[in-house]
Amino acid sequence: MKAAIIGGGVIGGGWAARFLLNGWDVAVADPDPEAERKINEVLAGARRSLPAVYDRALPAEGTLSFCALEDACAGADWVQESVPERLDIKHTVLDRVNAAAPDSAVIASSTSGFKPSELTAQGARCIVAHPFNPVYLLPLIELVGDVPAGAADMLRSVGFSPLHVRKEIDAHIADRFLEAVWREALWLVKDGIATTEEIDEAIRMGFGLRWAQMGLFETYRVAGGEAGMKHFMAQFGPALQWPWTKLMDVPEFTDELVDLIAGQSDAQSGHLSIRELERLRDDNLVGILRSLKRTNAAAGGVIAAHEASLPQPSASPEALPITQDRVIPQTWTDYNGHMNEAHYLELGAAATDRFMEMIGADAAYIAEGLSYFTTENHLQYLDEMHAGDRVRVSTQVLEGGPKKMHLFHRMMNPAGEVAATMETFLLHVDLGTRRSAPARADVAEALAAFGQAHAGMPRPEGAGRYVGQRG
Amino acid sequence: MKAAIIGGGVIGGGWAARFLLNGWDVAVADPDPEAERKINEVLAGARRSLPAVYDRALPAEGTLSFCALEDACAGADWVQESVPERLDIKHTVLDRVNAAAPDSAVIASSTSGFKPSELTAQGARCIVAHPFNPVYLLPLIELVGDVPAGAADMLRSVGFSPLHVRKEIDAHIADRFLEAVWREALWLVKDGIATTEEIDEAIRMGFGLRWAQMGLFETYRVAGGEAGMKHFMAQFGPALQWPWTKLMDVPEFTDELVDLIAGQSDAQSGHLSIRELERLRDDNLVGILRSLKRTNAAAGGVIAAHEASLPQPSASPEALPITQDRVIPQTWTDYNGHMNEAHYLELGAAATDRFMEMIGADAAYIAEGLSYFTTENHLQYLDEMHAGDRVRVSTQVLEGGPKKMHLFHRMMNPAGEVAATMETFLLHVDLGTRRSAPARADVAEALAAFGQAHAGMPRPEGAGRYVGQRG
Repeated sequence: MKAAIIGGGVIGGGWAARFLLNGWDVAVADPDPEAERKINEVLAGARRSLPAVYDRALPAEGTLSFCALEDACAGADWVQESVPERLDIKHTVLDRVNAAAPDSAVIASSTSGFKPSELTAQGARCIVAHPFNPVYLLPLIELVGDVPAGAADMLRSVGFSPLHVRKEIDAHIADRFLEAVWREALWLVKDGIATTEEIDEAIRMGFGLRWAQMGLFETYRVAGGEAGMKHFMAQFGPALQWPWTKLMDVPEFTDELVDLIAGQSDAQSGHLSIRELERLRDDNLVGILRSLKRTNAAAGGVIAAHEASLPQPSASPEALPITQDRVIPQTWTDYNGHMNEAHYLELGAAATDRFMEMIGADAAYIAEGLSYFTTENHLQYLDEMHAGDRVRVSTQVLEGGPKKMHLFHRMMNPAGEVAATMETFLLHVDLGTRRSAPARADVAEALAAFGQAHAGMPRPEGAGRYVGQRG
Repeated sequence: MKAAIIGGGVIGGGWAARFLLNGWDVAVADPDPEAERKINEVLAGARRSLPAVYDRALPAEGTLSFCALEDACAGADWVQESVPERLDIKHTVLDRVNAAAPDSAVIASSTSGFKPSELTAQGARCIVAHPFNPVYLLPLIELVGDVPAGAADMLRSVGFSPLHVRKEIDAHIADRFLEAVWREALWLVKDGIATTEEIDEAIRMGFGLRWAQMGLFETYRVAGGEAGMKHFMAQFGPALQWPWTKLMDVPEFTDELVDLIAGQSDAQSGHLSIRELERLRDDNLVGILRSLKRTNAAAGGVIAAHEASLPQPSASPEALPITQDRVIPQTWTDYNGHMNEAHYLELGAAATDRFMEMIGADAAYIAEGLSYFTTENHLQYLDEMHAGDRVRVSTQVLEGGPKKMHLFHRMMNPAGEVAATMETFLLHVDLGTRRSAPARADVAEALAAFGQAHAGMPRPEGAGRYVGQRG
C-alpha cells in the first residue's frame, strides 16, 4: 500500500508515521526545504510511542520518500492533504492531486476549517479526514463527505477509529467542542477568574479523567444513576436558561489578551521544552491507552482490535515456537533506566498465554472453566533491555503432562542474544473448584506433542537453577 | 478528625467515602430513609477503587454513623452540605449547621449552581467546595469564597486537589466548560449531525485522551511547537469570528429533545446496567490514575504526593521489616480471576525498593549514580490473592555483602498466611559503567547489620528451591 502525504508539518508527519509504521510506503510532497527534518522529528516521536501501545510487533516499516506532488500521488492508495488552511491553496493542490492520483485512490483533506462542499466546489474529488494531534497516537478521524467504500477500513487497518459525520457542518464535531471551551477559557483568563494553569487543573483533575474513557453522554448517564438519562436531563436541563457560560458573546482578540495568555502559559510550562512536553504527553498517552486496553474500553478497544489484526510470530529457526515478538514500551522502564524486573515476568506470562493458545487453551477454553495456574517461576536477568527494543521470546517445553506444564522462555534481543530467561511451572486447574484437574484431551495431546518434539533438545542453560547458585 | 455530611446521595456519599477511607469519623445527616443504603452503595464503590490507586495502605477506616443534623455537626472539623440545589433549602440547612457546628469547623457547600455570596446572603458562614463525580476518585475540588486557613490542607490530607477560584462566578470554572459542551452537544443531536454515541466517540477517541493529562492550554502549547503559544494563538484566534459553535443561541429544551437523547443513550449504553457502567468507569479511572502516577503527571501527581504522606509500614512481630503494606488493585487481576503472576513480582520489586530505602539506597543515592540490579528471582505461588485483598510483605536478608544482596520476601494475606514468596538476588552497580561495584560504606554497613540480625533466624521454607523441585 502507498500513501501520498501532501504537506508535511506536525499533522502531515503524523499521518506519514501512522502509515509508515503500519507497513505502508509513504511519499511526502512539501516544498518546504525543512520538510524532511520536520517529518523525521515527528517520526522519531511516533517510533518511540506507537509500537509501545501494542503487545505485538507492528509490520516492518514501509519506505519513506520525498518527492514532487505528482510523483507522490502516482500509484497512491490514499492521498492526504494537510496544507495550510486557505481555501485557494487547497483548491490548487486538490486540482493537481486529482490530475495525478489514480481513480481508485482515496483523496482526503486534514482540514478542520472547511466543509467537503467548499473543498469540492471547483470539481475536485475530495473528502475530509480530520485527525487529532498527536496523529500517530490518537485514534479519532472525522470522515465527512462522500466517503468511498473501503476508506474507513483502510483507516482501521492502520489503527485509526473513523467517525463518519452524518451531515457536513463547520468545524465537524470535536473542534466545535474545543472552540466552545476555548472561547469560555479566554473569557475566564481575560476576566481574571483563573489563569491558564488553573484552567488546565480544572480540566485534568476532574472531567478530563472521565472524558478519556466515556465522553459526555455516557458519563452523565452514570451520574443520573438508576433513574436514568431522563432524570439527569430533568436536573441539568434548566441550566440552559442560566448564564453559565459567556458564550453568547465573543471576547475581543486583542494583543493584550494574547500576551496575557502567552505569559501565563510560559509561567505554567515554560520550565519544560516543547520536546519535553511532547514526550511527557506521549508517555502519558501510552500509559492511558495501555490501561484502557485492559478493559477494552474506548480508545483501548481500538488498540486491542488493531493488535488482534497484527500477525502472530511464527516458529524460530531453532524450531522453538516464538511466543512473543514486540517492542518494549517506555511504561516498562524504571529508575535504573532499563526495563524493570517485573515486566520480564509480564513478558514471560504473555509468552505462556500465547503458548497456551497454541495448544488450544485459549479464551474459549478458559470460558469453559479450565485453565493453568502458575505455581513457580525462576528468572535470570542476563543483559539489560530498554524502551524501544524489539524483543522475541522462544518457548521450550521441559515437561508436559495431563496436569503439569513446565516451560522455559528465552527472551532475546534483536541480535538474537538471550537477555533473560524464565522457567515456569504450571498446574492445570478446574476454575470452578480452583483445584488441579487434567487438561481436556486435545489440549493434553497438543502439549505432549510439543514435549516430544522438544525432548531431544539440549536442556537450556539455567534450567533447574536456584537463586544464588554459583557459576 | 470528624466530618459531618449533610445530605447523602451520590455526592454526599462520595465525600463520606473520601473522609472515612482516610481515617476520619463520618456522621451523615439525611432525612431520606434510603440514605444509609445509598451511602453504603457509594462506599462499596469507593472501597473497591480508592485504595487501588495507592501502593501503600490507607489508614484504618473511621467510624460511620447516621444521625440528626445537629448531632452530626457537633464536634465536626469539616461540615459538607450536599442538599438539593434550591437556595431556600440551602439557607435553612446552613442556618442550622452554623448554630450546631464548632466555630473552628470548615462549613462548605457542594453546590454547582450558587455563588458563596448567595449562600451567605442571610448571614450564614459557608464556602463553596465543589467536587466532581466520582468524588472518591477525582481529585478536583473548586474552593470559592472566604476560604479559612488550613481548609485546603485538610482537603489535601484526604487526597483532594483543591483549586481556589480567584473570584466568584456562576458555576465556578469546570462546569462552565461542561455547560458549553453540553449546549453544543444538544444542538448537534437536535440537528441530526451526530448521535450521543458519536459525540462520545468524538470526545474519548481524541481530545479526551489529552485532557486527562494536560488540559487545554498546555495541550495547545505543545501543538504550537517551537514557535510557542503566541504562534498557536495567531493560528487559532481568528476562529473566534467564525460560526464554529452554536453557542450564540440556546436550543429549546423540549420533551422531544429529551426523548431523542434518552433514546439514543439507551441504544448506546443500555446493554450495561448503571452499576456495570460505574465499575467500568472506576476500573478505567484506577488504570488512568495509576498510569499518570508513573510520570507524576496531573492527577497522578496528586496521588503520588498523598501516597508519600501515608505512613510506611513498621517492623513485624517476627522482627522482620515490613516492606509493603497495600491493597491489591483490580488492574492487577487477570482472566483467571485472581492477581496475575507478574504483579507478584511487581509487589516483590516494590518490597526490594523499600528495603533499599531502609538501608539508605534511596532516590538520592540512585541520583548519585549507585544502585542495585536484580540478577535472579524465584517466586512460589502458594495461594490465590484477589483484588481488594490487603497484602503485607516481610523481608529477610539471606546474604548481605558489599556487592551482593540476597533477600527473601514473604507475601502475606490478612490472616498472616504466606500466599507467595520471592527470593531475589541483586548486585550493587555503578550506574555509569553499568558494572558491579561496592556499595557506599553506610549502605553496606546498614545491609550488613540487617544480615547479622537475620542470620540466626531459620532459613525460609522455599529458599534455594528450583522450579519443579519435588515436595
